[in-house]
Amino acid sequence: MKRLLMLLLIISGACQENRPEKVSQSKSSYHPTKKVILEGLNHPWSIAFLSQDEALITEKDGTLLKVNLKSKIRTVVKGFPEDLTDSIRAYNLGDNSGIFEVLLDPQHEKNQWVYFSYAAKRKGEGRTTKIVRAKLTQDSLYGHETLLEAEPFTREYFHFGGGMTFGTDGKLYITIGERLFWERDNPPIPIAQDITDRRGKIYRINPDGSIPEDNPDYGPSAVAGIYAVGIRAAQGITVEPKTGNIWFSEHGTIQGDEINLLKAGANYGWPNVTSGKLRSNDYTPPKLEGANFTPPVWFWPHTVAPTGLTFYTGDDFPNWKDNLIVPGLSRGSLWRFRIENDTVKSAEELFIDDRVRIRKARQSPSGKLYILTDEDNGKLIQILPQ
Amino acid sequence: MKRLLMLLLIISGACQENRPEKVSQSKSSYHPTKKVILEGLNHPWSIAFLSQDEALITEKDGTLLKVNLKSKIRTVVKGFPEDLTDSIRAYNLGDNSGIFEVLLDPQHEKNQWVYFSYAAKRKGEGRTTKIVRAKLTQDSLYGHETLLEAEPFTREYFHFGGGMTFGTDGKLYITIGERLFWERDNPPIPIAQDITDRRGKIYRINPDGSIPEDNPDYGPSAVAGIYAVGIRAAQGITVEPKTGNIWFSEHGTIQGDEINLLKAGANYGWPNVTSGKLRSNDYTPPKLEGANFTPPVWFWPHTVAPTGLTFYTGDDFPNWKDNLIVPGLSRGSLWRFRIENDTVKSAEELFIDDRVRIRKARQSPSGKLYILTDEDNGKLIQILPQ
Repeated sequence: MKRLLMLLLIISGACQENRPEKVSQSKSSYHPTKKVILEGLNHPWSIAFLSQDEALITEKDGTLLKVNLKSKIRTVVKGFPEDLTDSIRAYNLGDNSGIFEVLLDPQHEKNQWVYFSYAAKRKGEGRTTKIVRAKLTQDSLYGHETLLEAEPFTREYFHFGGGMTFGTDGKLYITIGERLFWERDNPPIPIAQDITDRRGKIYRINPDGSIPEDNPDYGPSAVAGIYAVGIRAAQGITVEPKTGNIWFSEHGTIQGDEINLLKAGANYGWPNVTSGKLRSNDYTPPKLEGANFTPPVWFWPHTVAPTGLTFYTGDDFPNWKDNLIVPGLSRGSLWRFRIENDTVKSAEELFIDDRVRIRKARQSPSGKLYILTDEDNGKLIQILPQ
Repeated sequence: MKRLLMLLLIISGACQENRPEKVSQSKSSYHPTKKVILEGLNHPWSIAFLSQDEALITEKDGTLLKVNLKSKIRTVVKGFPEDLTDSIRAYNLGDNSGIFEVLLDPQHEKNQWVYFSYAAKRKGEGRTTKIVRAKLTQDSLYGHETLLEAEPFTREYFHFGGGMTFGTDGKLYITIGERLFWERDNPPIPIAQDITDRRGKIYRINPDGSIPEDNPDYGPSAVAGIYAVGIRAAQGITVEPKTGNIWFSEHGTIQGDEINLLKAGANYGWPNVTSGKLRSNDYTPPKLEGANFTPPVWFWPHTVAPTGLTFYTGDDFPNWKDNLIVPGLSRGSLWRFRIENDTVKSAEELFIDDRVRIRKARQSPSGKLYILTDEDNGKLIQILPQ
């Protein structure tokens, strides 16, 4: 009889193993909702998770914060570079200056390196996009190293770019905008097509700022570190975990908002080709001999202003696995793309009835999905299943 | 020992009950694919399932077919009305004439009634949309009854409408197009706004063609059966099973493609208001005193040409439950809308890499999803989980 009882216990235990599947089965048809985690952020641009509950947040029009998602305590991190340009929020136009990306070194726990992009000023010259890394201990930065300055410094206020991601190859990939608002302001060789000009390019550098030997060769006249050209205003860049591919978003002028797959040495065409229209009717791009343009994988027939995109690998939404999540500033909704290899299979616009300017989508270490809203009262919002 | 064995069998049986859940759990993240069931259809317009394996299919440029989805055997149904207009496919423009909707009576098994809409001709006058019902026995129609003729008969070839659905109230709802291609051809009172003209309206009638007493009252001068006005070119109309609400799709001119929620006595605005632009720059709609226009629930910022929509209630795609499925002719993709009450929560464009002109989406009695493609070699395609 004892044997029988033990046997029963073993078998009933085996039965119970199926229960979790029951739960995840019902979860599969859950729909996304928003839960506000933090408010009162000053146009937050990016977030880097130090742990599941602690993160660094950059405020475009503010400062660098260390926040605790549970206690809600926020601390200003000391030692942010002092050449951060003065706020030009008054202009309130386009992709204006401030603090942009924040990224942890893949080895951050060992080496404490944190990477920033921001609009730096230089007296008498103007401003441009600058990439700096520094070590973070407690709530302070030290040991700053400048990795890239997208010279020249100019008076323009727009299209700094500043998106950054580490590739699976351990290299740092950086988007630098063309900095113009009107393409008619381009010199004879358009900025984004001129390999002697640092603007309007995507860069690939080593974490210490040195140039990888296996970068594409643009010749002796080219500025160092160029990985791709023909960029107008790319802010979002991210790695696809399943493939190691790198994807980036691009703002067009009149339409022309795009999702692109990054390829070494590629030319994404701006301003010579665009999936939208040029803003200047009085501008005709010069003929570029032998140029070979790479088309976008996706473009919208309407304005979206896609920004800080990320791939979703969490468990909350089983049918979103490995999908690309793309936030929009304009129109203000969140997009989900199912992509196989380099083909878009489906595109879903989410939160149509609850639109807000979204700057960034990011996943926490445990695979929870968060977004940052581009508002005076900016928010960190978690996307949860209903 | 015998008791023990029996006990084991019982318990192991109980364990196995969980296996189906395992399956549906993994299914939840499956993605849609297409399986061609029938080919060689002549621009099919609609399908009505007689059973899971047998259906009636209308070919816009052909005839009425009875098809077996398993044996693939197709039979031409005899006795289709002889005043079907001659094909004007040669013009190959807009929503041209032919056979449109086919619908079974809710009591079809008892009374054999089948309902059709098609473009009928009248010698010397032209053509218009006509609604007929007839009894189906074997492969023949008999006992024809004319339920509605959208007079006047005219020479125009476009925008017949012809969408039909039975409401949960047992009434027959019918969309009749405005029949114009250029809105500048409208008379002083636009056709779709003129309650003395049958065109450009949505009708609600009893299955025998008589007018329900609880229809909205448009006064003595109005044609019989009007339920809503201000319609341009609505083809798709369907019931939302969860609520009993009726939804219809509408073609705009330059953009202006819409999804609308049907309300008794509503005015959907054409040509006085549209979510798109008028095709004629030289046309200004007349001021309509006291008109109260109902806006669409959804409109696209680009052209889609939405047609035969349906709500999905099947089990193949758990996360699509109760979603609205909308096929598009132009752009050629399939759209999925998650709607709560009268609010669109999300919109997904499916089969982006496999576009084809789609005329109709329909569910079989067992909840399988099918589409009809608007091609010379038209297809019946089942949408299956990968």
